[in-house]
Amino acid sequence: MIITEVLSVGTELLMGQIANTDAQYISRRLPDAGAGVYYHTVVGDNGGRLSGCLRAALSRADIVITTGGLGPTQDDLTKQTIAREFGLELAEDSDSRRRIDAFFAARGRKATENNYRQALIPEGAEVLTNDHGTAPGCIIRGTGEYEGKTVIMLPGPPNELRPMFEKYVMPLYRRLAGSAMVSRFVRICGKGESEVETILMDLIDGQTNPTFATYAKDGLVTVRVTASGNTEAEAAAAAERGAQAVSGLLGDNVYSFTDEEPEQALIRLLKEQGLTVAAAESLTGGMISQKLTSVPGASAAVCAGCVTYSDAAKHKLLGVKQETLTTYTAVSAETCREMAAGMRALSGADIAIAVTGYAGPRVSDEPVGLVYIGVACADGITVKEQHFTGSRERIRTLTAVNAIDLTRRLVQKCAPFDAV
Amino acid sequence: MIITEVLSVGTELLMGQIANTDAQYISRRLPDAGAGVYYHTVVGDNGGRLSGCLRAALSRADIVITTGGLGPTQDDLTKQTIAREFGLELAEDSDSRRRIDAFFAARGRKATENNYRQALIPEGAEVLTNDHGTAPGCIIRGTGEYEGKTVIMLPGPPNELRPMFEKYVMPLYRRLAGSAMVSRFVRICGKGESEVETILMDLIDGQTNPTFATYAKDGLVTVRVTASGNTEAEAAAAAERGAQAVSGLLGDNVYSFTDEEPEQALIRLLKEQGLTVAAAESLTGGMISQKLTSVPGASAAVCAGCVTYSDAAKHKLLGVKQETLTTYTAVSAETCREMAAGMRALSGADIAIAVTGYAGPRVSDEPVGLVYIGVACADGITVKEQHFTGSRERIRTLTAVNAIDLTRRLVQKCAPFDAV
Repeated sequence: MIITEVLSVGTELLMGQIANTDAQYISRRLPDAGAGVYYHTVVGDNGGRLSGCLRAALSRADIVITTGGLGPTQDDLTKQTIAREFGLELAEDSDSRRRIDAFFAARGRKATENNYRQALIPEGAEVLTNDHGTAPGCIIRGTGEYEGKTVIMLPGPPNELRPMFEKYVMPLYRRLAGSAMVSRFVRICGKGESEVETILMDLIDGQTNPTFATYAKDGLVTVRVTASGNTEAEAAAAAERGAQAVSGLLGDNVYSFTDEEPEQALIRLLKEQGLTVAAAESLTGGMISQKLTSVPGASAAVCAGCVTYSDAAKHKLLGVKQETLTTYTAVSAETCREMAAGMRALSGADIAIAVTGYAGPRVSDEPVGLVYIGVACADGITVKEQHFTGSRERIRTLTAVNAIDLTRRLVQKCAPFDAV
Repeated sequence: MIITEVLSVGTELLMGQIANTDAQYISRRLPDAGAGVYYHTVVGDNGGRLSGCLRAALSRADIVITTGGLGPTQDDLTKQTIAREFGLELAEDSDSRRRIDAFFAARGRKATENNYRQALIPEGAEVLTNDHGTAPGCIIRGTGEYEGKTVIMLPGPPNELRPMFEKYVMPLYRRLAGSAMVSRFVRICGKGESEVETILMDLIDGQTNPTFATYAKDGLVTVRVTASGNTEAEAAAAAERGAQAVSGLLGDNVYSFTDEEPEQALIRLLKEQGLTVAAAESLTGGMISQKLTSVPGASAAVCAGCVTYSDAAKHKLLGVKQETLTTYTAVSAETCREMAAGMRALSGADIAIAVTGYAGPRVSDEPVGLVYIGVACADGITVKEQHFTGSRERIRTLTAVNAIDLTRRLVQKCAPFDAV
């Protein structure tokens, strides 16, 4: 295992202006590269403190990945500080200078003198080109005191760091590991993390290749299956076998084998089948439509949506009967059913999703977390009662995610949840 | 200034399963308490490495705040490790045990034996009660080698950490600082961060009390004005003067003097004036309604919304004329105007918001980032053309934020943007 440390440089992190999502991203990827991470450190734009952190990190790790501090201003001193620590001079890299000129030219602007500071690279370092910004990254391989140690410097903005990491850093680790590593994702909706872990316990305990890691967020569980092999194909085959074993145990709860969100999976399925969808939302207030339309190219599958927050809107826009609202209230299977039917008729979509429920905060004695999810399609209307717990935002999110997943199950013609 | 360090404990951070939002939250709050943060460290659930990080942090800082590792399992060893470092035994705190029992009883469950591990507290430590979970925090004040040093242990889950931090940690800092510190926020929509900084430059450079810090996110700029004084009232008055000075320079672009989002400000204003709102959304696909309904109590002001992603939906739901769509296209001031008028008529809301535009990715030669925002109210319809840049998600977010802010300006009867 290649011991790696993430050293993030930036006063904006220490001021709490941003969370350290760069360290998160890198840490999430490194297990797939055969690396272990024992420490993250954040330090401000201060040469002395950065030097101290760098020395501590190099004493503990094989590879130190720095993020941030590669910008054009005097504040940005990561390269300068690390070059000094390694006894290296900085020299202008002519290719990096040309790329900076091209970057500005493409935007109809001209680089200023301080932008060219970004083209200064420690002598002998490998340059990592930046396809999304002006700051190249670089790799220094240590000699003397630092023989066998490597420092990889990456820019701070996530949209620059992530592509550079994938293009240069993952392949570097794979070369160092001397074996191919391949990961597959199995994404699950409808089971909690501890339930998934219990179901997979024997599988996980019995294997060292592939390995399995689970994590949970917003009602979804992801199992990452990572396999190594002498060749890419061998590793991929082992990862695939692992993913299939997980899938066999979790059945219809598996909504994807890639790292995609439920809305991406649903839009993909709808487009494959030439189907359209529309959502009628009460407690989620637009979140379902917003998730569906966040997928690039969603317009082929999403035609319309309604936010019917008030009883009047449910009646007027969707045609929910006053009698239904009076007899059963707005939060009922009956109202949900009429919302779904009404949305399907109004929009002309093949499939209509409807949700109604109590997101909280509690104002009188309504059962916060009670939610009805309905899906209307050519085969009829399915309505499911759910009980969620947590904050208002969590209840809204769980409702949206489960509504999208119920629709996915119906589109895939697999067993829906138990309907009411 | 009280030098403080944040030491976060948790393998889930090193695995990249979560970002370190606890460190972000604490760091964002500490400047208001007269504290400076020079380092964040993340370490896994490993006693030896945690001890090493603790010693390094105590050598550099007056106060070390730890987050995480207070859970009930064998993995959770923050209290055990730190107590050992300070030469303290752990003893059960009977009040904490009672609270754990009460926590489970309120949920109809019973605590298991390992839950009571959380009631073990280093002897002599101050207990910080947890109103949202079972893990109490605690404060150890050092003696001997660690004389003058303080360690504050907080639980990892943000919904437990944040209230505990506000209830115990902020007051502790204020007592230590010996002076009162008060912050005011000035929140701005309609100007970029560098523009705001340029406008405020003389004000910021000329003052040491209050101090000003700006940060930007998703089209919004926040200026935090922090003042100190011998008394709370004196500090508050100085902060208030600073906030008013900022406001005087930024005029109608200021949408709030508290740390609230544009949708919270708008819902507050609408409720004060007894007005209702409805949104008709094309490119934002429900994001505006979702933001508005994310505010607790929004149902008093939000009645309905429509997501009209397709031309057909714009015509069918909102009554946009086919001729308008054909002559001017769906992304035009004319279509936006008819969407707003149609939404107002359909919903019966006092105010209707409408947005249409190109969020990308580019499919042929449409100008990605061109957006029209319209607001219809009793006084007529205002439509504004905007040009945003960035990713699909950024263009959608900027559209939603600016649409909400344009509505706020009209509700406040202050000068709207230049209308087309």
